[in-house]
Amino acid sequence: MCDIGEKSVVEALIGRIGPSGDIGLGDDAAAVRLGTRYLVASTDLVTRRTHFPKPTTPFQMGWMAAAVNFSDIAAMGALPLGLLVAMGLPRETELETVEGIADGIGACAEQVSADYLGGDTKETDDICLVGTSLGMVRTDGILLRSGARQGDLLAVTGNLGLAGAGWAEIDVEGFHPLARKALLEPFPRTKEGALLSASGCVTSCMDTSDGLAMSVHELARRSGVGFKVDRRALPVHIEAMGIGEGLGMDAMDWALYSGGDYQLLFTMNPEGEPRLRSMLGKGYTIIGEATEEGIFLEDGGRRSFLEDKGFEHFRW
Amino acid sequence: MCDIGEKSVVEALIGRIGPSGDIGLGDDAAAVRLGTRYLVASTDLVTRRTHFPKPTTPFQMGWMAAAVNFSDIAAMGALPLGLLVAMGLPRETELETVEGIADGIGACAEQVSADYLGGDTKETDDICLVGTSLGMVRTDGILLRSGARQGDLLAVTGNLGLAGAGWAEIDVEGFHPLARKALLEPFPRTKEGALLSASGCVTSCMDTSDGLAMSVHELARRSGVGFKVDRRALPVHIEAMGIGEGLGMDAMDWALYSGGDYQLLFTMNPEGEPRLRSMLGKGYTIIGEATEEGIFLEDGGRRSFLEDKGFEHFRW
Repeated sequence: MCDIGEKSVVEALIGRIGPSGDIGLGDDAAAVRLGTRYLVASTDLVTRRTHFPKPTTPFQMGWMAAAVNFSDIAAMGALPLGLLVAMGLPRETELETVEGIADGIGACAEQVSADYLGGDTKETDDICLVGTSLGMVRTDGILLRSGARQGDLLAVTGNLGLAGAGWAEIDVEGFHPLARKALLEPFPRTKEGALLSASGCVTSCMDTSDGLAMSVHELARRSGVGFKVDRRALPVHIEAMGIGEGLGMDAMDWALYSGGDYQLLFTMNPEGEPRLRSMLGKGYTIIGEATEEGIFLEDGGRRSFLEDKGFEHFRW
Repeated sequence: MCDIGEKSVVEALIGRIGPSGDIGLGDDAAAVRLGTRYLVASTDLVTRRTHFPKPTTPFQMGWMAAAVNFSDIAAMGALPLGLLVAMGLPRETELETVEGIADGIGACAEQVSADYLGGDTKETDDICLVGTSLGMVRTDGILLRSGARQGDLLAVTGNLGLAGAGWAEIDVEGFHPLARKALLEPFPRTKEGALLSASGCVTSCMDTSDGLAMSVHELARRSGVGFKVDRRALPVHIEAMGIGEGLGMDAMDWALYSGGDYQLLFTMNPEGEPRLRSMLGKGYTIIGEATEEGIFLEDGGRRSFLEDKGFEHFRW
């Protein structure tokens, strides 16, 4: 962000212009009540120079502009409705590039069964893509960051660490295609989000776009609880472990501190666990528990503080 | 737009990714059906270097980012619901600038009784603002560009030409504040749009962001009709006339060919006119009639072709 700092900017905005929607700033997306449902919306700006690593293809830029916004509404438990994309393109942009971006946007929208609704195209100095995702969720099913209670189970969808592995060797051509794809074409967890919402037992949720550790701290702050996280339970991606061994790096660090996995981190009532398991199967892993206070990483008998830090690869 | 041309870009996008919403591309905003209503959404990208003339204040940048999007949903007859703004800011941006932009966004949203729902803030090379407006309209009240029929009356809200006057001397400090304000703080006609929708007699509508002449041509193309426009009936703003006289320029040219007035241009059944008049009073002026074909400007007994042209001040 600018020299005055992103926090000051956001504070200036909040102090002056709300937000005045039904759900306050601080969640993954905004929400407005429409009868028995919330309309949920998220917007996100990315530019080529500042936000995409060099090897990113046009398809991946388009995919990313869509995916990060679908991930945000997934974290609220919303079913995707549609996507708008405003596009700034430099004068010298080739048609092939535009088509690649369009294909990426379309593929991601199709993946989550959302409609591409339209957008805007303008001339800018650098490629700039701004997606806005729209979704709906029943008012009694909306997932916020603030609902975790002491005794709740802490869980995460899918696996962790592969996006971090993809970043580790991003400049090496031909490096592990699966890891690169995890980083540059993250999969928005909209189905999981909708099921978490429908289960009735999920008490808080957010996506792990900033990494697991920072997300755990954020849920703790917003819910007023602590967490213990079981290091040995973390679903580190097996490919990430292999890549870590090859590079002499610890895949566990990627799982904890790397952004980009775009999984959903959530808490639930322990009584609801069987029901959620029947809905999601192996789609999530229990990794800890909400406590009164303090945020700890437990590893067998050892306990350490879980640091509130993440690697900032490139800023989303 | 880029060298390949905006038309090619838009065609590439349409060919590849829809839009697949309920209302096709080509209207001012996208629409998705939700039961008995449409959710209407518009997004628009502006950057300081490419889209704002030099004297534009931060407040005006924020206002503009909101206003152009509210104008788009007004043209569909939708009542504004909320606004999201993604903001790209260079590292050296001063807090004062951010506050000014926020104030402009907030003032415009308040003006149309919409909620500011949130957004995103990122670092970019140039100030980049992307607003997304959301609104609702009854399915039987949505206004499109395609509904004009032969015999319909052609009308426009408010006055014309003041934005063009504001542009004529944009570099002269202290030049006519009202004209400059008309250009840099256009007023989105959301109330008029909602009343046009509620009247039940409006058959097509769009905003005049590209100027009156280009908008008349667009309604004609999309509806498959012609138009005759009565030059003497055009509601040229009295201040614009004064400014035109002072500069030795014709305010009528601004009224016809200058973008930026952000009025609503619409057609209606002649039978509905008394009802609409009772609702909007002097808020609109009848300026012509839909015909079988051809687009003419009539001036007393003289008739000429109305050119499909506009001044491109700066590209919105």
